[in-house]
Amino acid sequence: MSDQVDEIDDEAFGITDRLLADVMAAVEARDAAAIEALLDPLHPADIAHLIEQISVKDRRDLLDVWKGGMDGDILSELDEGLRDEVIASLDAAQFAEAVRDLETDDVVDLVEYLDDVQQEAALGALDAGDRVAVEQALSYPEESAGRHMQSELVRAPEHWNVGNAIDFLRSDIELPDQFYHIILVDPRMKAVGYVTLGRLLSSRRNVPLVDIAEDSFRTFHVEQDVEEVAQAINHYHMITAPVVDDDDRIVGVITIDDAMAFLEEEAEEDLLRLAGVGEGSLSDRVLETTRQRFPWLAVNLLTAIFASGVISLFEGTIQSLVALAVLMPIVASMGGNAGTQSLTVAVRAIATRDLTGANVWRVIRREALVGLLNGLVFAVVMALVGVFWFGSPMLGAVIGVAMVINMVVAGLAGTMVPVMLERVGVDPALASGAFVTTVTDVVGFFAFLGLAALWLL
Amino acid sequence: MSDQVDEIDDEAFGITDRLLADVMAAVEARDAAAIEALLDPLHPADIAHLIEQISVKDRRDLLDVWKGGMDGDILSELDEGLRDEVIASLDAAQFAEAVRDLETDDVVDLVEYLDDVQQEAALGALDAGDRVAVEQALSYPEESAGRHMQSELVRAPEHWNVGNAIDFLRSDIELPDQFYHIILVDPRMKAVGYVTLGRLLSSRRNVPLVDIAEDSFRTFHVEQDVEEVAQAINHYHMITAPVVDDDDRIVGVITIDDAMAFLEEEAEEDLLRLAGVGEGSLSDRVLETTRQRFPWLAVNLLTAIFASGVISLFEGTIQSLVALAVLMPIVASMGGNAGTQSLTVAVRAIATRDLTGANVWRVIRREALVGLLNGLVFAVVMALVGVFWFGSPMLGAVIGVAMVINMVVAGLAGTMVPVMLERVGVDPALASGAFVTTVTDVVGFFAFLGLAALWLL
Repeated sequence: MSDQVDEIDDEAFGITDRLLADVMAAVEARDAAAIEALLDPLHPADIAHLIEQISVKDRRDLLDVWKGGMDGDILSELDEGLRDEVIASLDAAQFAEAVRDLETDDVVDLVEYLDDVQQEAALGALDAGDRVAVEQALSYPEESAGRHMQSELVRAPEHWNVGNAIDFLRSDIELPDQFYHIILVDPRMKAVGYVTLGRLLSSRRNVPLVDIAEDSFRTFHVEQDVEEVAQAINHYHMITAPVVDDDDRIVGVITIDDAMAFLEEEAEEDLLRLAGVGEGSLSDRVLETTRQRFPWLAVNLLTAIFASGVISLFEGTIQSLVALAVLMPIVASMGGNAGTQSLTVAVRAIATRDLTGANVWRVIRREALVGLLNGLVFAVVMALVGVFWFGSPMLGAVIGVAMVINMVVAGLAGTMVPVMLERVGVDPALASGAFVTTVTDVVGFFAFLGLAALWLL
Repeated sequence: MSDQVDEIDDEAFGITDRLLADVMAAVEARDAAAIEALLDPLHPADIAHLIEQISVKDRRDLLDVWKGGMDGDILSELDEGLRDEVIASLDAAQFAEAVRDLETDDVVDLVEYLDDVQQEAALGALDAGDRVAVEQALSYPEESAGRHMQSELVRAPEHWNVGNAIDFLRSDIELPDQFYHIILVDPRMKAVGYVTLGRLLSSRRNVPLVDIAEDSFRTFHVEQDVEEVAQAINHYHMITAPVVDDDDRIVGVITIDDAMAFLEEEAEEDLLRLAGVGEGSLSDRVLETTRQRFPWLAVNLLTAIFASGVISLFEGTIQSLVALAVLMPIVASMGGNAGTQSLTVAVRAIATRDLTGANVWRVIRREALVGLLNGLVFAVVMALVGVFWFGSPMLGAVIGVAMVINMVVAGLAGTMVPVMLERVGVDPALASGAFVTTVTDVVGFFAFLGLAALWLL
């Protein structure tokens, strides 16, 4: 009954180095039976994880020897970046066979980015009802609730009692693999509430379902952003989010395990975008990775050249006091770091909806004040460095004042840039970093070298 | 039955600007009844969100007028940073009343960081069974599964059939608010499998529970890191993770909604740590935020001064060719950005267990190659900038070569630093950034100015 009652492995869930070595030995010997014997006891998520960890060449060999073993559950668990590579290694019949037993949302996930020929082959393998559900889901916008919902769900008329529901569930109907609620509908199929299976099981047969429905019931429109639905699931601790069409008729559900995966992906995307990394998975190839990293570096080069242009305005100043060249990166670097701090807090707060119209001015004020206070502390430190390292109190004053200016600007830009990008519909995680560091570099160099030109020469 | 069948508000879940204004007007009028009327229809998560959004002063006024309305569910939903502030505003009796109806894991969450007097008062309000469960949980390490598990769960002897289980659930026992599985135990209370409520409901009364138990069953030790349990819940799509003691006896469960919250917190923590922001919530005060941001800025100042020290070795070189001062920040900046890209990917991959002993060398090789390729492209661009801006092919060669060197080093350091920190038990998100940018600054300035000294003068 239980595969194993065991703690998960600390490093990589069910995959040990030993297992990996055994699998690769079996691949080398081209022994499909041995591979099967090793992989069969594993959870599909672990098999997918193993496939992600090995090199491109090893993966190609493994799939070549063992392609019969690939099923829909493993495909669903694979990193998106790798899925197409693996699907391409299957012929049409194998792929069709693999998707047959999946829930509709998993099928949609697998086929949504395939070319028409492959998609048609996959849809052809489904039974008529599932096929209609998948095609319906594909007709909704990408990233919408309708695209990602599971159409398998359990409905009950609102006038039923517990006994009716239990008899219905025990009848010969096909039930979803996993379900945790029964959704109550009125005669027009409008969703009006839901009952948890726990309440159903613990109530007597003659209790009306409406009497044990949950207090709080929310539905989501098919075209609503699936990420918003996932955030609501997290915020309201829902297990199942009902999805309805324009007439409030129930058409599917988003389940909490899918919502969890969406939020994880979203958090990862924000993190990687803030660092200027396109999509990025470890299994990407060198050329692809190089291309993904390139755009942000190119933007950074332009902004760095722009900042250099500011420095070149002061070549004469630097020529007469070379200490300025030594100290100027410090001002820019501190501003850049302070700006990144404010920026990261703001981007995260926008994503979690903690930064809203109601508190945006308070947050901007706070960030500017934080920049001012830390700026004052570091200004004093740097003024002392200026005095003791270069023996010039005036140089100390210049770097101190420039530091304060740049850190206040960093706090302002770090908050206002992402807020403004959000307002105009640009993902703040994607574009803010370049703007903010350009601002802090330019302001840092200009304030420091400009004050030096005014006060020192 | 249903509060509202409604789409969630786009900006801040159930909180509109209008509602916020109405609540604040009622607070100003010190009208507790009006506040109650406005807040009562809201989900506790929304009330908590509202409390987080308003200013420190408004919050104090709201709690002062309306403190009778604060209940345990709202307290549980509050940001950790704010909870202590709110709890401090309640007297012992109010707080004890508030926690009385919570599940044990929520009580633990609320009381674990209180001082002994407050903790004792809260525990005193619980009934004996709950109190034992909470004290037991508090005896496990922070961040362990035992500390965060819910002790309310439904167990059944493995020899029961479906009818026995349903009769048991309908009997007069106290059931958890939410439960989705029945856990099967042997006579020594060892957990041996579980049955979903869906399977239970759709099976006939005479079917043995063991026949409908799930294929895959995993348990987790009370002392295991709760984040690992949450990752496993996500990885294996579990709804409930059973927690067992040293003798494999079931003592509690971690539920998926809690796991989701843990993973969200963890992702946020990594993001903020990478940006050098301590904890950080928007409701923090200026002085507290200033203090939280200070350490990373201080570390950055030290590393920036260290990098300036490298520049000062070449004062003479800069004096004779001031163009070097103009161009040198470009080399450092590109290295810093490339290093941050590699670093972010590595930190995330370590967190999601995609970067393991099995592929670490392949990843390091890949990052160095990506640095080399992008370095070559930008070297050519910068060489041309050197030639056309400053009319010096040799200057172009110097900046090009320095660029390639620094970007390869960035790829290496960006991956190896977090991997090494992880090996020695330091959170790579917390400390890697400072190391990596120090490396790229120092290498960038040294390579560029050193080559200039060798080749240009």
